[in-house]
Amino acid sequence: MENFNFYSPTEFVFGKDRENECGEYVLKHGGSKVLIHYGGGSAVRSGLLDRVCASLDKSGISYVKLGGVQPNPRSGLVYQGIDICRNEKIDFILAVGGGSVIDSSKAIAAGTVYDGDFWDFYCGKRITEALPVGTVLTIAAAGSEGSPDSVITKEEGMFKRGASGDAIRPRFSILNPALTQSLPPHQTAAGITDIMAHLYERYLTNSKEVEVTDRLIEGLLLTMVHEGPRVIKDPNNYDARANIMWAGMMAHNNSCGVGRSQDWNSHNIEHELSALYDCAHGAGLAVTLPAVFTYVCDHDVMRFAQVAVRVWGCQMDFANPRATAMEGIEKLRQFFISIGMPKNFEELGAKKEDIPKLVEVLCRGNGRDGSISGFVTLNEDDCTKIYELMI
Amino acid sequence: MENFNFYSPTEFVFGKDRENECGEYVLKHGGSKVLIHYGGGSAVRSGLLDRVCASLDKSGISYVKLGGVQPNPRSGLVYQGIDICRNEKIDFILAVGGGSVIDSSKAIAAGTVYDGDFWDFYCGKRITEALPVGTVLTIAAAGSEGSPDSVITKEEGMFKRGASGDAIRPRFSILNPALTQSLPPHQTAAGITDIMAHLYERYLTNSKEVEVTDRLIEGLLLTMVHEGPRVIKDPNNYDARANIMWAGMMAHNNSCGVGRSQDWNSHNIEHELSALYDCAHGAGLAVTLPAVFTYVCDHDVMRFAQVAVRVWGCQMDFANPRATAMEGIEKLRQFFISIGMPKNFEELGAKKEDIPKLVEVLCRGNGRDGSISGFVTLNEDDCTKIYELMI
Repeated sequence: MENFNFYSPTEFVFGKDRENECGEYVLKHGGSKVLIHYGGGSAVRSGLLDRVCASLDKSGISYVKLGGVQPNPRSGLVYQGIDICRNEKIDFILAVGGGSVIDSSKAIAAGTVYDGDFWDFYCGKRITEALPVGTVLTIAAAGSEGSPDSVITKEEGMFKRGASGDAIRPRFSILNPALTQSLPPHQTAAGITDIMAHLYERYLTNSKEVEVTDRLIEGLLLTMVHEGPRVIKDPNNYDARANIMWAGMMAHNNSCGVGRSQDWNSHNIEHELSALYDCAHGAGLAVTLPAVFTYVCDHDVMRFAQVAVRVWGCQMDFANPRATAMEGIEKLRQFFISIGMPKNFEELGAKKEDIPKLVEVLCRGNGRDGSISGFVTLNEDDCTKIYELMI
Repeated sequence: MENFNFYSPTEFVFGKDRENECGEYVLKHGGSKVLIHYGGGSAVRSGLLDRVCASLDKSGISYVKLGGVQPNPRSGLVYQGIDICRNEKIDFILAVGGGSVIDSSKAIAAGTVYDGDFWDFYCGKRITEALPVGTVLTIAAAGSEGSPDSVITKEEGMFKRGASGDAIRPRFSILNPALTQSLPPHQTAAGITDIMAHLYERYLTNSKEVEVTDRLIEGLLLTMVHEGPRVIKDPNNYDARANIMWAGMMAHNNSCGVGRSQDWNSHNIEHELSALYDCAHGAGLAVTLPAVFTYVCDHDVMRFAQVAVRVWGCQMDFANPRATAMEGIEKLRQFFISIGMPKNFEELGAKKEDIPKLVEVLCRGNGRDGSISGFVTLNEDDCTKIYELMI
């Protein structure tokens, strides 16, 4: 196990109706003038935004609203949010929505107090200072409610890139599983896929002697395998939603990823798909993960065999561990299909002829040098072959 | 799953040689005049205390030292520590040691800023304010380095009782697995047992639909089953020590215990043993756990069968689930014996004739009303029978 620091100071407020307490938590964490940042339709239609405003009113907190965050959130709205925060002297940002809204809020929070272009943080500069952020989560997926990470898409070039720093970990996150019950099945399934991807990206490590984090990741994957199909079958199943929501947070606050190298190649490969086709990140991952794993399986057959046996219930083929490893990858692929995720480029809305462009942006865009690195280093040729496996 | 709040703002600083950074972390978390609280022999002999002082010196932090914490820490030293903190205007307490030292530090931290007898907190009053505490951990066991809990023994009556509150969660905890390599086998094994007890106390729940926390607990138990025997066999195995150390923190910071009722009857039953005989808490638990589980198995046979199958690798006996449940309890008992823990009253140094006294203090002492409650409510007759199972 490698040396590490782990710091997760977010206060999680979990359960039914807890969004009605958001005013108290903004006060507790030092907010007095709030930017409420949200997407569009559902938070308004469901009455959630009204309940949030009522709670802030009750606590005597003033606020400004900025909606319009779209999936794969864009830099344009971030610049707009930064202007508002500076002009209105905002001291707290409350994200009401899913990962996109939270990531956009984090970008605004960091950009507001930064004397430069916020995009610097998405080109590798560490975030060390930001306005405090709180969240009211509406979809279990990105894990942004407990993470120090944010992903934003820059319109010029359609670069989708990540930034990180403990300063953008939310001060509090309100997780009410009931808020996720109204999600369309496709979004629920995309969330499940994203959570599982966060687990696999940590599972694929070159670090040795990481039993404790292996076991934690496997436990969370087993939870998803059990609870995922239950919510797809019965969207109103509060308990299954609750288990998935906590698993989604635990999958990405890094308590199960400490002390080990991680992968994240699959996320990078997918980001180009959702940036170009504006598909759900989770849907892109459902197509990407099995392709990447098939391509890199030989790098560490026993690791793929281990997850196949421990999570997917495969019988170990001691004469041919690679068969077990591949069986586990196939079970993962079938699982994604079973919850309604796309299985290939066509179902995703991606085009074979775009592969050269995807590879170019992936490996050369935004300052990259021709390859991406994680569990395995992948050059342009590797990435081309991986995209081709998705056709 | 039940509603909950989860807040774990401790900064964990994990790995080789990290104790040499403790001065920086005291500064970062606001300390300028420190009480260094420790036990005795080993922290001094090993040079650890000197390294801690050197790090504080380097950061320009002044300090006062208070050693002498004994296992099952006593209220007498807590009162002494409170006096020192008040007289010396201490603003930060640095615990250098194991669970006993950390628990004593937490008691001093809460007592110093409290206008009354600190023992009030150990009679049920919630701790809401305390001096900040940091830790340099020397044994993986109690989980106090990441928990809001403290257990102290009051000399008058030898009551061993717990207190709790987010205010006593450590601000930072330095976890260097190498510091645990010099522990005697008995202490290592007692620590392993304590960690497993923290997991079982959470596993035994009456809450339904808690798959995610079940799976996390099972993952941590599997880690202990794998790594425990490795460190007993090879005390210098850094990697096994590291896995156990992180598992010990995760077992007790409650990320795997949220949203569910918990047990803690075994801890209460054991506390009377270590209070009366001054045995290691973990050694007492090794004798207590199998006895309690045998006695309460019928309350939820399928729960015990589940852990038997998932953690202990038992084959499910579908015609007789109770047989599987009991097989899992027997495997736990054999595991404790295999790492060198005592198996009964005699090996623990406890006496059959003391059972009435143990039961009296357990069920009637310090304001209790004749029973203890957790997974199952146990009256004096039940507790007598449980202690008798340990003979």
